[in-house]
Amino acid sequence: MDEEIPQERKTFLARDYSRGFIKYCQFKAKVIERGYFQSTVAIEEHHRQQDGFIHAGVMATMADHTAGYSAFTTVSEDFQILTIEFKINFLRPAFGEALVCRSKVLREGGQIIISESEIFDIREGEAELAAKAMVTLMAVHRDKLVLKG
Amino acid sequence: MDEEIPQERKTFLARDYSRGFIKYCQFKAKVIERGYFQSTVAIEEHHRQQDGFIHAGVMATMADHTAGYSAFTTVSEDFQILTIEFKINFLRPAFGEALVCRSKVLREGGQIIISESEIFDIREGEAELAAKAMVTLMAVHRDKLVLKG
Amino acid sequence: MDEEIPQERKTFLARDYSRGFIKYCQFKAKVIERGYFQSTVAIEEHHRQQDGFIHAGVMATMADHTAGYSAFTTVSEDFQILTIEFKINFLRPAFGEALVCRSKVLREGGQIIISESEIFDIREGEAELAAKAMVTLMAVHRDKLVLKG
Amino acid sequence: MDEEIPQERKTFLARDYSRGFIKYCQFKAKVIERGYFQSTVAIEEHHRQQDGFIHAGVMATMADHTAGYSAFTTVSEDFQILTIEFKINFLRPAFGEALVCRSKVLREGGQIIISESEIFDIREGEAELAAKAMVTLMAVHRDKLVLKG
Repeated sequence: MDEEIPQERKTFLARDYSRGFIKYCQFKAKVIERGYFQSTVAIEEHHRQQDGFIHAGVMATMADHTAGYSAFTTVSEDFQILTIEFKINFLRPAFGEALVCRSKVLREGGQIIISESEIFDIREGEAELAAKAMVTLMAVHRDKLVLKG
Repeated sequence: MDEEIPQERKTFLARDYSRGFIKYCQFKAKVIERGYFQSTVAIEEHHRQQDGFIHAGVMATMADHTAGYSAFTTVSEDFQILTIEFKINFLRPAFGEALVCRSKVLREGGQIIISESEIFDIREGEAELAAKAMVTLMAVHRDKLVLKG
Repeated sequence: MDEEIPQERKTFLARDYSRGFIKYCQFKAKVIERGYFQSTVAIEEHHRQQDGFIHAGVMATMADHTAGYSAFTTVSEDFQILTIEFKINFLRPAFGEALVCRSKVLREGGQIIISESEIFDIREGEAELAAKAMVTLMAVHRDKLVLKG
Repeated sequence: MDEEIPQERKTFLARDYSRGFIKYCQFKAKVIERGYFQSTVAIEEHHRQQDGFIHAGVMATMADHTAGYSAFTTVSEDFQILTIEFKINFLRPAFGEALVCRSKVLREGGQIIISESEIFDIREGEAELAAKAMVTLMAVHRDKLVLKG
């Protein structure tokens, strides 16, 4: 995984990362390498749940989406990435001022790609591992994307 | 699981369901029974991803949160519910006008509660199973909730 | 899923089910329908763990393998089924005289197939749900099976 | 996690590791540290499936059991470890002469312990990551172990 990806592709992926629901959630791309993607979010009140902790759904969404983009770094532009499934463990409650997600590809492949995501809770600048996910992804050629039903 | 839960408790849970991130995501409680919770969301543009499909994170958040509230229906008011982990499979792309989530408790318990959630994609009124999750939850007494680290 | 599968195919799948590690574990096919597979095992001492409960690995192996064969019932003979991943929740300790596993396909597909397995602990003839698994499988054409690395 | 565990405890855990189903599967403890457990198995024909690959159930059982013992290294002798659930991804087919499993604790806790297991396929001495699991465990005091139903 030591090949470089072109700057142009990085710029595209960084922008593409923050659209739709992800833009609504205010997640942003941070670091992009081949087989690796890092994202972040500054926590606001609407990311929390009733007790003040950051909602599990925020972390799950971030773990899934960032894993998907780590997979994107390993395929050509003609491919889209779909999530087949993921599993996430919440290791410690998160309540800090930001989250950082680091996703790396565990297994590359023409079709099935497996990534894992680690979510760190940033508390006064200190990073604490708050959640960890394993994500199974599928690379689908753009022309075949409309797989309904 | 055929005992009834008081109307007052139902009203509390229905309101409590839609706070913080969940309110931001516009999910709403629909049906509440002992060991069962149903929620819904009317899909807007900000729930979708770049290709127009409903984002996996929307479904994951809904599956997790609704499962948590199905667990809530089985414990007394002194307990809070935390998600330990969950796993979700995306069975078919979702692209309809609404989602409905049905969560039911598979295993009750004083501490560990297991629920499963089914997410249906509503397309012109027809419901299609789009995702299924298994969620491991923990009932924690309010007095012990601050379990940091 | 109401199409029938030929008796010849059923006989083949029933025999094929109990080979290698599965034969060593003494699991046997019981009921085969399109999109459904049921298996059983009579519990002996070597299926238990140190405290007398049936080992989680016995249930996990049974959930995985039987799910795989439920997928087998939906593809033609030219395809093999590989497990991409699975997740299993242990709902209650199992300690009975037999296990029964019921696997059904949740999502058919040319490549990705999702099944779920329920493991019942048989105690003096009564069946108690002991574990539940979700299994992601892949149909691979026999000619492409040697996918190393 | 840099505290040492007594040699006597290590000896106990190494022996305790290989009982019942695990003995039947011929898995053996190899390295024991606080928060870490390593096991191995020499592959025989009965560990394989119909196509000659090592059966997913062998890897799942090893991932689960070894994770459980990594948790054991973090609790006192009065506690037993139960698996609540686990999820395993099969990254590459395994077909070598041995498997090695390395499990480490991601989150310690008085009750809930999270470990991850990596299974390496040993092929002519070279180790290839073949599977990875996340395991949710529960420490239960021996006196409370009989939690039926």
